[in-house]
Amino acid sequence: MSWFRNLIQLSTIKRSPLKPTKSIVSPSLTQLLQFSTESESAATRQGGLGPTKGDEKPRVVVLGSGWAGCRLIKDIDTKMYDVVCVSPRNHMVFTPLLASTCVGTLEFRSVAEPIGRIQPAISREPGSYFFLANCTGVDFQNHAVHCQTVTDGVDIPDPWSFKLSYDKLVIASGAQASTFGIKGVKEHAIFLREVHHAQEIRRKLLLNLMLSDVPGVSDEEKLRLLHCVVVGGGPTGVEFSGELSDFITRDVHQRYAHVKDYIRVTLIEANEILSSFDDRLRQYATKQLTKSGVRLVRGIVKDVQPRKIILTDGTDVPYGLLVWSTGVGPSGFVNSLEVPKSPSGRIGVDEWLRIPSVQDVFSIGDCCGFLESTGKPVLPALAQVAERQGKYLAKQLNRIGEAGGGHANAAKGMEPGDPFVYKHLGSMATIGRYKALVDLRQSKEAKGLALAGFTSWFIWRSAYLTRVISWRNRFYVAINWATTFVFGRDISRI
Amino acid sequence: MSWFRNLIQLSTIKRSPLKPTKSIVSPSLTQLLQFSTESESAATRQGGLGPTKGDEKPRVVVLGSGWAGCRLIKDIDTKMYDVVCVSPRNHMVFTPLLASTCVGTLEFRSVAEPIGRIQPAISREPGSYFFLANCTGVDFQNHAVHCQTVTDGVDIPDPWSFKLSYDKLVIASGAQASTFGIKGVKEHAIFLREVHHAQEIRRKLLLNLMLSDVPGVSDEEKLRLLHCVVVGGGPTGVEFSGELSDFITRDVHQRYAHVKDYIRVTLIEANEILSSFDDRLRQYATKQLTKSGVRLVRGIVKDVQPRKIILTDGTDVPYGLLVWSTGVGPSGFVNSLEVPKSPSGRIGVDEWLRIPSVQDVFSIGDCCGFLESTGKPVLPALAQVAERQGKYLAKQLNRIGEAGGGHANAAKGMEPGDPFVYKHLGSMATIGRYKALVDLRQSKEAKGLALAGFTSWFIWRSAYLTRVISWRNRFYVAINWATTFVFGRDISRI
Repeated sequence: MSWFRNLIQLSTIKRSPLKPTKSIVSPSLTQLLQFSTESESAATRQGGLGPTKGDEKPRVVVLGSGWAGCRLIKDIDTKMYDVVCVSPRNHMVFTPLLASTCVGTLEFRSVAEPIGRIQPAISREPGSYFFLANCTGVDFQNHAVHCQTVTDGVDIPDPWSFKLSYDKLVIASGAQASTFGIKGVKEHAIFLREVHHAQEIRRKLLLNLMLSDVPGVSDEEKLRLLHCVVVGGGPTGVEFSGELSDFITRDVHQRYAHVKDYIRVTLIEANEILSSFDDRLRQYATKQLTKSGVRLVRGIVKDVQPRKIILTDGTDVPYGLLVWSTGVGPSGFVNSLEVPKSPSGRIGVDEWLRIPSVQDVFSIGDCCGFLESTGKPVLPALAQVAERQGKYLAKQLNRIGEAGGGHANAAKGMEPGDPFVYKHLGSMATIGRYKALVDLRQSKEAKGLALAGFTSWFIWRSAYLTRVISWRNRFYVAINWATTFVFGRDISRI
Repeated sequence: MSWFRNLIQLSTIKRSPLKPTKSIVSPSLTQLLQFSTESESAATRQGGLGPTKGDEKPRVVVLGSGWAGCRLIKDIDTKMYDVVCVSPRNHMVFTPLLASTCVGTLEFRSVAEPIGRIQPAISREPGSYFFLANCTGVDFQNHAVHCQTVTDGVDIPDPWSFKLSYDKLVIASGAQASTFGIKGVKEHAIFLREVHHAQEIRRKLLLNLMLSDVPGVSDEEKLRLLHCVVVGGGPTGVEFSGELSDFITRDVHQRYAHVKDYIRVTLIEANEILSSFDDRLRQYATKQLTKSGVRLVRGIVKDVQPRKIILTDGTDVPYGLLVWSTGVGPSGFVNSLEVPKSPSGRIGVDEWLRIPSVQDVFSIGDCCGFLESTGKPVLPALAQVAERQGKYLAKQLNRIGEAGGGHANAAKGMEPGDPFVYKHLGSMATIGRYKALVDLRQSKEAKGLALAGFTSWFIWRSAYLTRVISWRNRFYVAINWATTFVFGRDISRI
């Protein structure tokens, strides 16, 4: 153990009477020399990772750790490439199960998969890294990205900026929740896209349950505190409403008996809920949600205030918890990139998911869309699309690498191979206890299988269990579901 | 469903063209009347809970939700008493396992037990409550406590203050971590007493591991970031150091291979580690900790700065993570109470755990100590002591209630029964992977069984498993241990 030797050495320093101010950690010269032989020397790493040499593995830089980026990272051949992932979070979120964590059906960790488990080479190979950072800009000309470390309030001299040279760049940084320019959404509503959002929702829900039990709180205030409003009737909004009403029926009635008559769930949607699903499924969902106590309101939000939202028809809706899930739009980073965009403002790609105007740059997932010139429609911002694109691109990059085109500018003029074709495998959504919808049609117009009820709930659970990436999390999800079934949900507010 | 009827009614209001500004939630008169028949009327609850009447169940108010308070709440006869618990957290922390959660061996929720599970009557009985609040003062003369709701930054008109009348009051609000007046401890060190402390330690540790991998970080800075310093060599400090070194050996070497040679653990203690344990056990612990890479430093901390601590001998100890576990002292609330105190500043109690100067008030756990007049020594601030006291006092209160002394001032002159006698059942501490100490002697001077190594590790785990209160958590702890054993620890930073 090298550091142990250093410690012994440092202890010697410590005992020396010549040094009045001693340091246990400050490295001695020997130590520094020793470290520089162990890892790359400090000089070569200062400021970032420089261009790879011809005899080194080419470097793929992946921006983002969502469905698209993680699937790519998982499938890429690390014997051929060094992989560097840059993302502000060190895990992938298993988004379809996130709604279940808000009320304690599942635990937060069960839906988060560390990048190091998805691709172990990232934590082991000398040239592969994960950097907890945001990308601030891309220098397409010089094959480099500029990044800034996420320090999260930790005391550090200055926000560390660094530069990474890439041989291939994959932009998979995703989209951001849209607020449609409505005032107050960012300040007062909670999105449901990251684990910390789910944590915030859970903490707030439990806090409101306890606050409404405080002596002296008026009935009006209780009704407000315990009014859970969900804006957006897509799968996330519907699943969250279903989980909430299930939580109320099963757990609040038992654990918060004093205030159980005050809690309510309202789902506000401008059009129809689950608009992408089959008609009959939609009707079934509407019936089930209403039956379980979720109030469906057709309306458009005009303004969000700290304790109420105002609809365009003038209705006031007081709330205690406001969850916003009305879809996504391009992020600031994507907006800042000077490349052709798709009609919806997403990074424009050709049929091989390349950005045609620049060399060696690809884009996958929610942040990209087909250019109009491809004649293909922009695909919906779904986990399923992102995951397929990641899988396809990993295969493409492995093929390019095998053909010797891995390094920067080395794939010029190479045959691009088969284009990316998306085949929709169906949509799924749960609507509370043992009820789910499975729409196996390939598009809205097509005919095909549509299921509702217990059978599809079972399919839904099984499908998700086999999709969660690691065995560890598959195991935990199964255990969580079993525990919730036997003991009810966890209500400790930590 | 009453609120469903209200909603229908409100929908009618909503459709009325006479009201330009409508509200979905504002309660109508019918609604308010209806609610007041369902629960107590708003008027009687306004400002708190008033004195109980002769024909009502007497009310026991418990301040705190630690080992002492929770054991009491669990054992008290809720057919005889209404129980009201006031605490800033809605769960009990299973403190002996808290150190394991910092590195992901156990999950946070596995060591937190919601009050509502410990005593279901609290969430169901009409006169029993849990209030998420701090007690701000006690009016011993009028049998009442003043409380202030914990709002946790949530937007609420003003901090809700309320008053609770009690028939019996149990002060079990615990102690607080002592800093010995050392500057900077509160600002820069993390204690290890609550779940949020463990969460903070875990987030910081994982952040530092990732930050130290950023390109351009000097070796000196890496050594600092990854230097984990623990101050205090009691069981908590030793267990945390052991878990950390186990985490480093088993997980960091595999998952953070780039920086594994920079991470180190130092345990600073002014005297000997585990001073309350048997000599041989102490030697065994010292040997094992040193062997697993923990550096033991004998020293006294003088000053804590953002990136280094300074010892009294002038040594600088740069750190990235600083955990402080040097013992506890009286809290501000306890200091503010004008009652006789024990020599160590704890609330003075007699042999029946009563505060002799006032009627119907008891104190248990870390916040209390025997008065000098009892001739008994103040007991150590241990979970074991607190739990025994809670058990004893519940029995006492049940006995008093049965004899008709439950209401305020009704137990005057009643025979106090058997005094509280503490029997030490032994001490336990783990020191990393499959190693633990079990000291079954009743006091430091006594002779008795002392075990070390795998056998005692097994005893330790079994003892804890049977002590975790609910089956749900026993099950989760077992599952967590099994998963960590098979898959390693979870390293996602959420």
